[in-house]
Amino acid sequence: MRQAFGERLAAQVASTGSSLCVGIDPRGPFPSELTRGLADSRSGQGRAVERYSVALVEAVAPYCVAIKPQVALFELYGGYGLSALDAVCAAAREHGLLVIADAKRGDIASTATAYAEAWIGLRPGETEPLADAVTINAYMGPDTVEPFLTVADRMGAGLFVLARTSNPGAAELEEQELASGGQVWERVADWIATWGAERTGASGIASVGAVIGATAPAVVRAARDRMPTAPLLLPGVGAQGGRIEDLAPAFENGPAGGLVVAARSVIEAWRETDRPWQSAVAESARTHHQAITIITR
Amino acid sequence: MRQAFGERLAAQVASTGSSLCVGIDPRGPFPSELTRGLADSRSGQGRAVERYSVALVEAVAPYCVAIKPQVALFELYGGYGLSALDAVCAAAREHGLLVIADAKRGDIASTATAYAEAWIGLRPGETEPLADAVTINAYMGPDTVEPFLTVADRMGAGLFVLARTSNPGAAELEEQELASGGQVWERVADWIATWGAERTGASGIASVGAVIGATAPAVVRAARDRMPTAPLLLPGVGAQGGRIEDLAPAFENGPAGGLVVAARSVIEAWRETDRPWQSAVAESARTHHQAITIITR
Repeated sequence: MRQAFGERLAAQVASTGSSLCVGIDPRGPFPSELTRGLADSRSGQGRAVERYSVALVEAVAPYCVAIKPQVALFELYGGYGLSALDAVCAAAREHGLLVIADAKRGDIASTATAYAEAWIGLRPGETEPLADAVTINAYMGPDTVEPFLTVADRMGAGLFVLARTSNPGAAELEEQELASGGQVWERVADWIATWGAERTGASGIASVGAVIGATAPAVVRAARDRMPTAPLLLPGVGAQGGRIEDLAPAFENGPAGGLVVAARSVIEAWRETDRPWQSAVAESARTHHQAITIITR
Repeated sequence: MRQAFGERLAAQVASTGSSLCVGIDPRGPFPSELTRGLADSRSGQGRAVERYSVALVEAVAPYCVAIKPQVALFELYGGYGLSALDAVCAAAREHGLLVIADAKRGDIASTATAYAEAWIGLRPGETEPLADAVTINAYMGPDTVEPFLTVADRMGAGLFVLARTSNPGAAELEEQELASGGQVWERVADWIATWGAERTGASGIASVGAVIGATAPAVVRAARDRMPTAPLLLPGVGAQGGRIEDLAPAFENGPAGGLVVAARSVIEAWRETDRPWQSAVAESARTHHQAITIITR
């Protein structure tokens, strides 16, 4: 039995010295050296996604604590894509990285249990979970999160619940004021805080966290106040306009209080350079890691 | 280029005389005659899911207009499961059924586009879409639905947006009152109505619909009033307590105004009988179909 996710996350952040989570979003075209010899078939394309994503994991591993594969970009290749994702998660584990599957799943009752088993539990015939944590969507209510909590507790896994996301349209629902007080996302944040309070160990980091867009500094402040022990998964840095220096409040409960997600700005750093592609990616990961270290220590 | 989803749905409901949508939720144990000779490996289990699900489609095809595969139960088997789902969708198409992938996906920007392409668009190397429509989650805001609309419009596909779901916890967020008036789900319903108004053809049925739990009759009434041309996907009949006779308001704009989803009560009808399993399933589908016909004609 593994330790609780919050304890594992805190220990990994401490041992690696990194609060960087690299988003693995495999978008083509892929480096030509990876696709040479592959057929232009569905299976060939799935293989290209796997080679590229595994190579990305290898390049960034020295500088990050976790990877966040974007499930949509694997699902796009159907069964071949999900098989590729298996290999990517295995590669991350071999490098000692945590895996946060960015699936944003949500459903009710036994269907939610099936999603939980698929991502952080045990799939039939498997002995290891695919990921250490998964992102979920709580629109349908707290009872739809409970099946995920049950599986997470059993497996020592983590959940990151969508709270206030990084897109402009977050204002249209997540930030709507409720008649009973507070905004919609704050209602979700209160659930997260409650679930997390029951799942916070010696490290002070809960096993239930929140997805908080890095594009709105005031929201990061409010999120930390509202969910004191939650790890905050912070996408939106770089291409979406979020700035690392605005994220300091996330780390008030320690360097594992936030996971700064960089995707495009790291994994596509090779596109505009003549350097070997993996070294360009590694260099960008290193730069991001260093920038984050300034605000977390 | 296919016709718009709303037009296709109306035509299919008219030609089949059915407003029944059977949920394909393959939960084991499966009929032993289907699993005989299969290895107890991951690939063997994926194959069992495929055989069972395809046989379910064959059994219910004469009595329904659409199937709704529950993606979680395929995803549980990883790449093998998604390959099985390919076969299930192909079988449904061969039987002239519409396929509504119950994926409840949602994400931002180009990630939303990737999900849309995966489910209702064209996956790399494919010439046909996997499904005719997909269920989506709009918690993150209307801008996260727009990429799905773009792909749906191009493909003549449909969207069913989660509005007020069938679970008890719907009260905790979906039914919360907004300070500006109305409940959270009604805000989403207003978006759906707007998107649908621009996507309603001669049939009077929009290509953008709503998921409305069949467990709360007053909500079905409110949903029809608020989204006059939207097809309503109505899960929750049977095992969850929803009653077909309470769903009449959905059909005020015609027999394609609602799709009554029956899952467990149809596909698991074989468990408590000594009859051949497929004929028990077919019989339950026929009974549901007839009960629905009474309220739609």
